[in-house]
Amino acid sequence: MTQDKKAQQFGVTPQSVDFNEWYNEVVRKADLADHSPVAGAMVMKPYGSAIWERIQRWLDDEFKATGHESLVFPTLIPMSFITKEADHVEGFAPELFTVNKIGTEVLAEPYVMRPTSETIIGHMWSQWLNSYRDLPFLHYQWGSVFRAELRTKPFLRTSEFYWHEGHTAHADEAEARAEVMAMLNLYHRFCRDVLALPVVRGEKSASERFAGAVATYSIEGMMRDGKALQSGTSHYLGQNFSRAFDVKFQTREQREEYAHTTSWAISSRIIGALIMTHGDDKGLMLPPEIAPHQVVIIPVFRKDNVDQMIAEAEALAGELRAQGVRVKVDKRDGVTNGFKYNDWELKGVPVRMELGPRDLESGVVVVKNRTGDEKETLPRHEAISGMAARLSGIQQFLYDRARAFMQEHTVTVDTYEDFKAAIDAGKWVRAFHCGDADSERQIKEDTKATIRNVPMDGDLFGEAEEGVCVHTGKPSAYGKRVIFGRQY
Amino acid sequence: MTQDKKAQQFGVTPQSVDFNEWYNEVVRKADLADHSPVAGAMVMKPYGSAIWERIQRWLDDEFKATGHESLVFPTLIPMSFITKEADHVEGFAPELFTVNKIGTEVLAEPYVMRPTSETIIGHMWSQWLNSYRDLPFLHYQWGSVFRAELRTKPFLRTSEFYWHEGHTAHADEAEARAEVMAMLNLYHRFCRDVLALPVVRGEKSASERFAGAVATYSIEGMMRDGKALQSGTSHYLGQNFSRAFDVKFQTREQREEYAHTTSWAISSRIIGALIMTHGDDKGLMLPPEIAPHQVVIIPVFRKDNVDQMIAEAEALAGELRAQGVRVKVDKRDGVTNGFKYNDWELKGVPVRMELGPRDLESGVVVVKNRTGDEKETLPRHEAISGMAARLSGIQQFLYDRARAFMQEHTVTVDTYEDFKAAIDAGKWVRAFHCGDADSERQIKEDTKATIRNVPMDGDLFGEAEEGVCVHTGKPSAYGKRVIFGRQY
Repeated sequence: MTQDKKAQQFGVTPQSVDFNEWYNEVVRKADLADHSPVAGAMVMKPYGSAIWERIQRWLDDEFKATGHESLVFPTLIPMSFITKEADHVEGFAPELFTVNKIGTEVLAEPYVMRPTSETIIGHMWSQWLNSYRDLPFLHYQWGSVFRAELRTKPFLRTSEFYWHEGHTAHADEAEARAEVMAMLNLYHRFCRDVLALPVVRGEKSASERFAGAVATYSIEGMMRDGKALQSGTSHYLGQNFSRAFDVKFQTREQREEYAHTTSWAISSRIIGALIMTHGDDKGLMLPPEIAPHQVVIIPVFRKDNVDQMIAEAEALAGELRAQGVRVKVDKRDGVTNGFKYNDWELKGVPVRMELGPRDLESGVVVVKNRTGDEKETLPRHEAISGMAARLSGIQQFLYDRARAFMQEHTVTVDTYEDFKAAIDAGKWVRAFHCGDADSERQIKEDTKATIRNVPMDGDLFGEAEEGVCVHTGKPSAYGKRVIFGRQY
Repeated sequence: MTQDKKAQQFGVTPQSVDFNEWYNEVVRKADLADHSPVAGAMVMKPYGSAIWERIQRWLDDEFKATGHESLVFPTLIPMSFITKEADHVEGFAPELFTVNKIGTEVLAEPYVMRPTSETIIGHMWSQWLNSYRDLPFLHYQWGSVFRAELRTKPFLRTSEFYWHEGHTAHADEAEARAEVMAMLNLYHRFCRDVLALPVVRGEKSASERFAGAVATYSIEGMMRDGKALQSGTSHYLGQNFSRAFDVKFQTREQREEYAHTTSWAISSRIIGALIMTHGDDKGLMLPPEIAPHQVVIIPVFRKDNVDQMIAEAEALAGELRAQGVRVKVDKRDGVTNGFKYNDWELKGVPVRMELGPRDLESGVVVVKNRTGDEKETLPRHEAISGMAARLSGIQQFLYDRARAFMQEHTVTVDTYEDFKAAIDAGKWVRAFHCGDADSERQIKEDTKATIRNVPMDGDLFGEAEEGVCVHTGKPSAYGKRVIFGRQY
């Protein structure tokens, strides 16, 4: 490829021109993922995989710290399991991948590739559970699941996607419900502190519940086009699955009782939220906590000093690494500095350092944050000692900016006219709703907007308030306004 | 369950009575894995999963430290890909899981669940590779693969198993072959230093090669019944897959050339090797480097001191953890100390500490190594300060014992009579072989033994030597004796 052609590869369609196209180009050009030859499935490339691994590592440490244990279930599930919980099969049947042959043997009962694992886990739990002393089961697994999708989009909607699924069983409802909220809150903290994503915690309306759940809670983020992205869910399943799979135990009082179960998940679509919450027309913008490289150092080469400048850049990198900073040195020769700047901006590395021969003589380095336009020339020791504060400043800036954006793009309305206008303008709407499923369906037909969730007490948008439904005029069902929006 | 029944659950069939049954009982009773409702697939339970996670973590760090990058490919592969490399399809066709339906749509071309990913990775590489500047590709992924198995056994042979698969592409043969050996050596080091498994490195004979490879290298361990377990493989694939998938690049000299590729893997069957190399009639015996818990502390309860003794045990655990030791405190009430001792011996925890009220008063603790019979009463500070050395002593002991066992159970023979007798006695055999595939097949029919590998120069069993084939009397093909054995 010529230099000119290479330079072109960084150009991305501006968000304001075509947000969808901007997203696709960023995913491809920043080397996050590629299309695969399997319908609807993606290949996560090394840079995307490095981000996903950091997400997994952080969450996994937290799961373990809160007493959860990992295990590994088969990818396949007997078809008969899926049909045991009535709502569950209704929800998932149209999306199933069916295995009908192993080797040369055509199967009497086919298997499905798991769309989620409540059923097979319930089956095993029924064998492992005897007494209240065995509870709680606090289990989770990392893996992928399979759901047919008509229109796919890397990270956001793929026929195979990557996640953890948490599954817990408890002796009573109170403990199970506490687990559901604890995991929702863990997800909220993860989004805020690691991904710099402001999200709204709340309960889903009945028509948006997980297939088979008694209650579903979600965290919802706002993308820069004003659409919502459901970024994690936590379900209270009551005794629905334990009845279907006979997950029962002897209580302290020697009675037989079905366990109360939960499930919860965050998937690889959270990377889509990361891209669409922070990115700009130059590409990705990664929060330092999750960035595979927090700092990239670009040594400035002349013809005769390549090896020396690489050694100097590595020395600088070593000093930063000693402080726990993740640093990449860009050693590529034969491409211009401008090429490298564009490349790392596209990849969203939070801080760039340039180190030239004259900088070396004067004991300075040039520092530029991905979030700003200004280049600073700083004494080397100051650039190093100030790096931790600089990175946490960028982290905070990204969170604050996204939160302000969410607030600015959310409007409170009381008439259906205003409601439709606000949704068409790409906003979230705070409005009263009567709780009627037919009304929700009608609103979705009219506007493509759905209830994202009923925000939690004490959270942003969660104030208690009484009023009448913006659509039917009936009394509000939730004791507060709910969030409506279009969604990914 | 009554106390008596619980006690029974620890008893395992002695190895000398029925090694196979011993293995199955250890897997089940130590909570490593369970059978699943999916034919031939297991469920890895939390204790087994914790061991597998530690294996993954160590290897993953090494892969990254040696410049490899992870990525994530789909679980499915178009059927047409599998048939592109002639040897490959011949090897894998009888074992494939076929997906014929997605949702309600019957597929014109079915997918297979990956038995290994050379084909789909080759397909993507052909799109990513342009110039020699892009090489090498140093890729790997963690995941599971699917191969139909008639007779399955947890960890050793399951229809779905867990692994990493490394895949690399290089500009020339020398670099690719160097990668193949580097990964084989990494596996050797991992087995030696982490799992305390002595293994023999060497090349496979032509008839035991991976389907589609130019050369296959393996590490082979010896189980306590004298059988071999292939514990890892590293393949030089030449240009076979790059020709089949058009993985070509422009050389520095502007010529077009096919890449030289490699692949390599260690799977969850290595946990089978861990069980069968170190275990005894009490159960598992885990090397400290891989053990999820290196030390278990058993506080000795009277009726009135449960909370106090738990607090004291936690304090002791804290002091050990401060030194980087992984410690579990067994807080269970309502089971006897003997029950706990048996439980943790079954689970193979390297060191047990008992802490009773009188020990507390005298400032001592009771310490027992899983590898010995002796209980030591030690001053508390001495037990703590000596723990690191104790653990590395156990690690070394396990390795040395297994290596001595391997040497004692390997015999050098020059006649086919001696060969058959030694194999029947459960030994490995060092013998000359002519390299003829028909002869290998005949030996396998006669004795169930195969060539495990041709040991590397400079390694145990790898001495250069000339002679005539133990089976055909023709000249030796390998310049040394090869290892024959029955295998898992």
